[in-house]
Amino acid sequence: MYKRLGKQTVKLQNPPAILSYAAVAGKKEGEGPLKACFDYISDDSYFGEKTWEKAESHMIKQCFSVACDKGKIAPSALDYIFAGDLLNQCVSSAFAMKDSHVPYFGLYGACSTMAESLSLAAMTIDGGYANTVCALTGSHFCSAERQYRFPLEYGGQRPPTAQWTVTGAGAVILGSSGQGMKITHVTTGSINDAGINDANNMGSAMAPAAYDTLKAHFADTGRTPDYYDAIFTGDLGALGHDILQALFKADGVELGPRYMDCGVLMFDLNAQEVFCGGSGCGCCASVLGGHILRGMEKGVWRRILLAATGALMSPTSSQQGDSIPGICHAVAIEKEG
Amino acid sequence: MYKRLGKQTVKLQNPPAILSYAAVAGKKEGEGPLKACFDYISDDSYFGEKTWEKAESHMIKQCFSVACDKGKIAPSALDYIFAGDLLNQCVSSAFAMKDSHVPYFGLYGACSTMAESLSLAAMTIDGGYANTVCALTGSHFCSAERQYRFPLEYGGQRPPTAQWTVTGAGAVILGSSGQGMKITHVTTGSINDAGINDANNMGSAMAPAAYDTLKAHFADTGRTPDYYDAIFTGDLGALGHDILQALFKADGVELGPRYMDCGVLMFDLNAQEVFCGGSGCGCCASVLGGHILRGMEKGVWRRILLAATGALMSPTSSQQGDSIPGICHAVAIEKEG
Repeated sequence: MYKRLGKQTVKLQNPPAILSYAAVAGKKEGEGPLKACFDYISDDSYFGEKTWEKAESHMIKQCFSVACDKGKIAPSALDYIFAGDLLNQCVSSAFAMKDSHVPYFGLYGACSTMAESLSLAAMTIDGGYANTVCALTGSHFCSAERQYRFPLEYGGQRPPTAQWTVTGAGAVILGSSGQGMKITHVTTGSINDAGINDANNMGSAMAPAAYDTLKAHFADTGRTPDYYDAIFTGDLGALGHDILQALFKADGVELGPRYMDCGVLMFDLNAQEVFCGGSGCGCCASVLGGHILRGMEKGVWRRILLAATGALMSPTSSQQGDSIPGICHAVAIEKEG
Repeated sequence: MYKRLGKQTVKLQNPPAILSYAAVAGKKEGEGPLKACFDYISDDSYFGEKTWEKAESHMIKQCFSVACDKGKIAPSALDYIFAGDLLNQCVSSAFAMKDSHVPYFGLYGACSTMAESLSLAAMTIDGGYANTVCALTGSHFCSAERQYRFPLEYGGQRPPTAQWTVTGAGAVILGSSGQGMKITHVTTGSINDAGINDANNMGSAMAPAAYDTLKAHFADTGRTPDYYDAIFTGDLGALGHDILQALFKADGVELGPRYMDCGVLMFDLNAQEVFCGGSGCGCCASVLGGHILRGMEKGVWRRILLAATGALMSPTSSQQGDSIPGICHAVAIEKEG
C-alpha cells in the first residue's frame, strides 16, 4: 500500500503509539517557565563528568534510561535507536548509546533531529520492521558554545538576534501497539537556502524552511492550521516565530496563539538573558519530552504538530562564506478518544 | 506484516531495485586498480572550487547528477534523499543537496553511511512511503586530513596501521519497480566498543563491529558466507580485513577469497603509499557505485553482501581519552535471473 500524500507527507497506516517519553534539562532551563515538566534537572553543568562533551553524552544517556524506566521497557526490547546531536561527528549520542546493544541509526539533522528521529522511528514501525523504537537527541550549551562560537572563558558578546543553546535532552519510545498519543503523519522537509549568512541569526535562516514544510503538510493532508490544537516549531526563537507568522499572514493564514515555538517557551525571555530564546537539538527534544507530551496526556491538547527546524551549517562553512541552509521536519501527534 | 528476522535483520517484502548508480573519484583513486570503473575522475583535487570542503560538496553533487542522468531520473522524481558525510555537521552532503528540493534525511554513520543510507532508502520504499529514493555519500582526503589529523602543509608522518581517506563519492538510486539488482535484506548494527583508542588504527577499532553485524546477518537469515558470491567490508583496510578473517576463523568459519575489503581494493597497497588502504565514507560508496554494481551487472557476482563500517569518534573524543566505538551496517544485494 502506498502511504504517501502529496510530495512530502506520509500517512501512517497503523500509527505508532508513544509508549514512553522523558526530558532532562540543565540548571538554567530548570529555572525557566517549564521547570515543572522535566524528569530531571541537573544543577551541575558537568553532569558529574570531566568535560562538557562527556556531560552532554551523560545527559542523553540519562534521558534514555529515564524513558525506558518510565515505560517499563528494557533497552534490550528496543528494535532500533535513531539518534543524533550537534557535536562534531555526533559523538554525544553515539557515546551515550555505545553500550546499549541496540541496532543504531545515527542521524544528523541539526536542531531538527527530534522530528527527524521520530519520523524514521514511526516509519520503521508502521513499515513492519520494528515493534519498539527510541528517538533521542540532546544538546549542551557549553559544548555548543565552544564548538560553534567561542570558549566560554572568552566572554563573547551576543547580538540581540542570538539564541541560547539549550542544555537538555529528550527521548520518545514508540511502539506498534498501545493506546493514547500516536504519530499519524510525517512531513519531511527539503533543504531551503534563504541566503542568510549571519550565524547569530538562526531564526531568520530557519523560518523559511519551517514555512515550506508546514505549507507542504497542510497541502498534502488537506488540513488547515486550526485542525491542530497547537503547532510547535523547534527553535526559531522570538524573531523566527514572528517571521513564520508573517510569512503565513502574507498568504492570508493566521496561525494565531495556537502557534508556539519551543525556543520561546523554554525561557523567560525578559528575565533570563537568552535574547531570542532557546535553540539546539535539546530545545525541541526536551520541550516535547517534557511540556508537550505531558500536556497532551493531561488533556491540554489533543492534536499537535511538531515542526523541528535545523540550520545545516558548520563553523567552517560560515567561515568560508557559505549561507545557512535550513531544514524542517514535521510530525503530527494525535490522541485518541 | 512483520518483516524482521532475528534481532537485527529485516527481509524486504518487495525488494527495491537499483535503478541507477554512479561513482566519482579523485586523481589518486583514479590511478589505482579500480580506475576503469569510475564515472568521472577529477585531476583537480579542488574540483574547480576554492576550498577542499567545497570540493567535497561539489564532488557529491556531481555524483548525484551522474546517477540521475544515467538512470534518466529527474531529481524532482525522487521522494527522498538519504545522505551524510564525515565533515563537521555533515555540510558537504547538505550543501550538495541544498538546491535539490527533495525531502532530505541527513545521516551520520561515519564510514558506514553508504550502507546506512541504502538501508533506510530500501526500507522507505518497501514500507510504502516512496517510489524512488537516492542514497548518497562521499569523502575527500584533503578535507578529512585537516579536520581529523593535521593540515596537509604540516607533512605529518603516518604509522603503518594508518589508512588513506578516499576522495570519492557514490550514489545509488532505488525504485519500487524495476528488474535486476535488488536490496533484499538489511542488517543494522549496534555500536561496538572494543576499547581501541589509537586513531591511526581504525581497522582494529571497526573489525569487531563488522564481525558482530556479519554474524548477526548469518544467524538472522540462516545463510552462510558461501551463500554470497562476494562479501565486501567498507574500509577495514588490510589489517582490519585480516582481523575479521581471524575472528571468523576462530569460530570455524573460513570467509576465504570471497571476502574483500573496499579499502584494500581501492589502491595498490604496494605502490600507492596508502599503508593499510582506503577509508572514509567515499571508499565504500565509490567502490559500490563503481566496481561492485558494475561487476554485478556484468555477471561477475550475482549475490553480494556489503558491510560498511564506521568509527564513531571525533578528534575531540580522542583528545579527551575516549575509545573508538565502531558500527557496521550490512545490505544484501541480489540479482534476479
